[in-house]
Amino acid sequence: MIYYLKHNLHKLNWAMIGNVLGMVLIAQACLMVLPVIVDLIYQEGLYDSYLIVIGICLVLGYALTRTRAKVNNYFAKDGMIAVGLAWIVVSFFGGLPFYLSGEIPSFVDCFFEAVSGFTTTGSSILTEVESLKHATLFWRSFTHWIGGMGILVFILAILPKSNDRDMHIMRAEAPGPTIGKLVPRMRQSAMILYTMYMGLTIIQVILLLIGKMPLFDALCNTFGSAGTGGFAIKNTSIGAYNNSYYETIITIFMILFGVNFNMYYFLLIKDFKQVFKNEELCAYLGVILFSIVCITINILSMYNFDVLKSIRLASFQVGSIITTTGYSSCDYSVWPQFSKMILFLLTVCGASAGSTGGGVKISRLLIIVKKIKLDIQKLLHPQKVEAITMDGKVVDTEVVNQIMAYFCSFIIIVGILLFLISFNNFDFETTITSVITCIGNVGPGYGLCGPMGNFSMFSDFSKIVLSFAMLIGRLEIYPIIIFLSPVLGVRKVSKSFHTRNKRKI
Amino acid sequence: MIYYLKHNLHKLNWAMIGNVLGMVLIAQACLMVLPVIVDLIYQEGLYDSYLIVIGICLVLGYALTRTRAKVNNYFAKDGMIAVGLAWIVVSFFGGLPFYLSGEIPSFVDCFFEAVSGFTTTGSSILTEVESLKHATLFWRSFTHWIGGMGILVFILAILPKSNDRDMHIMRAEAPGPTIGKLVPRMRQSAMILYTMYMGLTIIQVILLLIGKMPLFDALCNTFGSAGTGGFAIKNTSIGAYNNSYYETIITIFMILFGVNFNMYYFLLIKDFKQVFKNEELCAYLGVILFSIVCITINILSMYNFDVLKSIRLASFQVGSIITTTGYSSCDYSVWPQFSKMILFLLTVCGASAGSTGGGVKISRLLIIVKKIKLDIQKLLHPQKVEAITMDGKVVDTEVVNQIMAYFCSFIIIVGILLFLISFNNFDFETTITSVITCIGNVGPGYGLCGPMGNFSMFSDFSKIVLSFAMLIGRLEIYPIIIFLSPVLGVRKVSKSFHTRNKRKI
Repeated sequence: MIYYLKHNLHKLNWAMIGNVLGMVLIAQACLMVLPVIVDLIYQEGLYDSYLIVIGICLVLGYALTRTRAKVNNYFAKDGMIAVGLAWIVVSFFGGLPFYLSGEIPSFVDCFFEAVSGFTTTGSSILTEVESLKHATLFWRSFTHWIGGMGILVFILAILPKSNDRDMHIMRAEAPGPTIGKLVPRMRQSAMILYTMYMGLTIIQVILLLIGKMPLFDALCNTFGSAGTGGFAIKNTSIGAYNNSYYETIITIFMILFGVNFNMYYFLLIKDFKQVFKNEELCAYLGVILFSIVCITINILSMYNFDVLKSIRLASFQVGSIITTTGYSSCDYSVWPQFSKMILFLLTVCGASAGSTGGGVKISRLLIIVKKIKLDIQKLLHPQKVEAITMDGKVVDTEVVNQIMAYFCSFIIIVGILLFLISFNNFDFETTITSVITCIGNVGPGYGLCGPMGNFSMFSDFSKIVLSFAMLIGRLEIYPIIIFLSPVLGVRKVSKSFHTRNKRKI
Repeated sequence: MIYYLKHNLHKLNWAMIGNVLGMVLIAQACLMVLPVIVDLIYQEGLYDSYLIVIGICLVLGYALTRTRAKVNNYFAKDGMIAVGLAWIVVSFFGGLPFYLSGEIPSFVDCFFEAVSGFTTTGSSILTEVESLKHATLFWRSFTHWIGGMGILVFILAILPKSNDRDMHIMRAEAPGPTIGKLVPRMRQSAMILYTMYMGLTIIQVILLLIGKMPLFDALCNTFGSAGTGGFAIKNTSIGAYNNSYYETIITIFMILFGVNFNMYYFLLIKDFKQVFKNEELCAYLGVILFSIVCITINILSMYNFDVLKSIRLASFQVGSIITTTGYSSCDYSVWPQFSKMILFLLTVCGASAGSTGGGVKISRLLIIVKKIKLDIQKLLHPQKVEAITMDGKVVDTEVVNQIMAYFCSFIIIVGILLFLISFNNFDFETTITSVITCIGNVGPGYGLCGPMGNFSMFSDFSKIVLSFAMLIGRLEIYPIIIFLSPVLGVRKVSKSFHTRNKRKI
């Protein structure tokens, strides 16, 4: 550990990492003005806790951005560490107002809740949310919205001086394997992404307002679905409204936010061919349709063969879980095991790459399935060396191998997490689903942490472990694993760093 | 499907596959003489059912071995299909006596029981085994012994005319990624393996006899541990004897049978260096020790802080699960979740390559972990392109990728099986562990199929699905998946088959 710290850490471009952290803190301070405004409107006296945190963030942020980078070398590893650190720091300060305001008494709980917010997981340690004050509810939901597209992407979008090196940051933060530049300039890409994100968010809010949902609720519920987060402002989540219009709108928008945002860009520039030939989109919609049909048939008898109601409930839950949002419109933990298992498998599966959703991602699974098919074909016809194609283009073998490595790491990390979480001595169902739901950034599991349950009964140790699981899931393993690498025994040091790292994903 | 059958199946070397199947049937007929002898000793009137099956096998086997191969081309795919078919045929005829004798009334149950026996899984559909007749108990346990080392390896060992093409068969049937020839000639390798297997079996029987276990029990329990199967002849498995000497002997031998048999060969030829530097062996023993220590500490309070008893129980269960045997010496499903989770993770983990155990195999996991470490190192030090080494030798990148592909396939197949098994509407724990225990060839899971439970309540459909899961696990996916490939949509046909397939694993 000491060996690692001594030999590795000083080789990082700390000034550059400090700059990134500083910018993130300033951005967070700006975003925290919103809950202050909410509190001033509702007059609930929480604004001072937020102002204190804003002050700390500004001072620290200003100090960090003043550091000057000596060298301009910026490696993938610096980007990774910057992103990993930024997310931990943001979660730390993001959770601080909950603690200072006394809304959540334990600091570990505050950190868990903030990580769950920023990573768009939506797992909560709160047994009861309706007694929380408006500023707290707003900030909880707003962290989803920030985390969904990424706080660093946000900075890229608003800062003028970003350049090519920021690709490393965007790559480390953006979900899924196929992130590319939409337009040649990084900053423009980030701006386009945020504009589309903002646009969809506004449309959803308006549609909910048309249905006579109060503005505050409309905002919070939209933040939760836009970021595919899932923090609810009612104890029984969206089911509390008992309103099929709201459920339909939220279902549709959850599914829309689980689509690769590049698709919306293609629609905007009227390049419809790119959208229709997109295999991930087809697979994503196919899986959703298949799951809805299976579950609808399976639960029909539970709802007195009310087909419409069954379809509505099935669609909401499928949309919520596959996009890793985690809202619920009913207690689906009482559904038959077949439906529950489909939802569990969707938890692992996740949404599209380049969306705000988490999980392993459809495109990765698609490539793995294609790889397995190819291996069988090779066995049957050794001469026919074919390549894996995606959207009509050949996928580089190296990319396929990296995706397999990602999936293997994912499963092995799940194994380690299961070992650590089983200390709690909860039942099998709770243990397994809590780990999967956290690393998949979904939110609810089954058992004690089911749609009507929460994470309050987990030990502090488990809450910290699960917080890291959420970060590992959101940042797609590597940025967080690099921090843990001394513990894992990766210590070897090389002596020269001359060329740039050309990682493919 | 029809397209596949038309264009693919006639390209196979059916005459050669028929020959293999014929030999397998004749071998099975010979091996079935043993339960006939057992029945004649105990005079329970089951010998006629076995004789009928022996007759069918001999006639069919003779007819099949008479077919003449037109071409001598023998591809990996022919080997795969021969092995896959052979195991299905063997299980079919292996289960027939249970049905004919009326000991197990449902044919699906008989097939499940026979597959479970040959694949050395040890999952049983019987609610009560002590009322079974001796010949049935003997044959059940003996199928483990045959399946452990492999029925085709057995044929290779006794037949004089085997040649290099049989490597494909051995590769398809032998467990784990690192099977190699011990000596240049295939037949000799197979003979050495069977001799060592027989030797260890005899030693275990003698040691159990010394402890005054009846000969019949000693034989059956030894077959179960040698093949890492786990069918018990008592309702409460090995725990029924309540004898710490038996438990100790069986623990030691289960662990010994989970070691790569190459190690014993190296010991025999006094090449100790090869044994000591074997990384898989170290990892295997390390995992066992670590698990025993964790579980012992965890269960101490349950057994009134009786350290010796706790160690004994922990060791037995760890040895039983990691080697995928599946015996139990107590009802460990009442242990704390931490211990249960360790055993669950060991179910996935499995024993060493080249042993009689199942699961993913330690060496595969070791290589995957090394690959992940390497990826992190590459990220930290892009210049340092290092290779993965195992036992001091560099592992080919292609082999690493194939192992990752194997692991990914394993997980995806588990996902599909979970979907199919959840039809039963059993609880989450039963559904997940039944699938994992069957594909890992372990035997018991948790919940309804726990160490004191069984698989009798599963639907016929599930029993057939789980039978295929066991075969997929035992034959390491590909030989069985090739059968299912038309269903999975792998249909493409190539036109030329000129060169030999050079698959690495």
